[in-house]
Amino acid sequence: MTREPILLAHALSTFDQRWSPRIVTQVNDYDVRVAKVEGEHVWHAHDDTDEFFLVLDGELTIALREQEGERSVVLSTGAVFVVPRGTEHKPSSKDGASIMLFEPTGTSTVGDRHEDVPDHVDATTGHALEP
Amino acid sequence: MTREPILLAHALSTFDQRWSPRIVTQVNDYDVRVAKVEGEHVWHAHDDTDEFFLVLDGELTIALREQEGERSVVLSTGAVFVVPRGTEHKPSSKDGASIMLFEPTGTSTVGDRHEDVPDHVDATTGHALEP
Repeated sequence: MTREPILLAHALSTFDQRWSPRIVTQVNDYDVRVAKVEGEHVWHAHDDTDEFFLVLDGELTIALREQEGERSVVLSTGAVFVVPRGTEHKPSSKDGASIMLFEPTGTSTVGDRHEDVPDHVDATTGHALEP
Repeated sequence: MTREPILLAHALSTFDQRWSPRIVTQVNDYDVRVAKVEGEHVWHAHDDTDEFFLVLDGELTIALREQEGERSVVLSTGAVFVVPRGTEHKPSSKDGASIMLFEPTGTSTVGDRHEDVPDHVDATTGHALEP
């Protein structure tokens, strides 16, 4: 539990790895994670949970495979978006972005179904923030 | 469910009322809310849930009554803090702030136990965002 406020900018300054979320704090059984992203993630889906994105800096694209077909949404700085449970999606950021995520503790970055995971994507349930 | 990204700045531009959160989107059975705050809220506690605060603009003070005694934390822009369930707390902002909250859908702004609620504080489980 967070006993003192944490500046998200400070949390982001403690690591450089892309696509490798750090857990900033927890709210009940949810994680608040921050991540630096650049390039392409992989197509994946979380079968049992929605996933919340807030762009803190930069621009994030999320490709979505919906019943109606495939589309992309573009999130600029200060934008939020929720990917519904079960929806295949692929985040990407050509020029890099910093993001905040809400999702249940234990949620994998590559979901329950995913493409092959390349080396630049960290398949993880989130890492502790370095003090 | 959010079908398009929402700019938090846009969401905040749709209302002026202080201490009256708007529900921007939902993540499973949680709300993402934004609020404008200024002056003092009331001492209250949520017995069954933690409460997450992110300051989007301005400065927010949260007074806390903990087992060790009373203290305050000060959140500047970009800071996050979680008030643990059961902890009496009173948010305030002398010069005003915009905040984002993450808490279970149905959570009351004045919690399960609270002081008398003055007119300037909206006792609500959050309002829908105007389109």
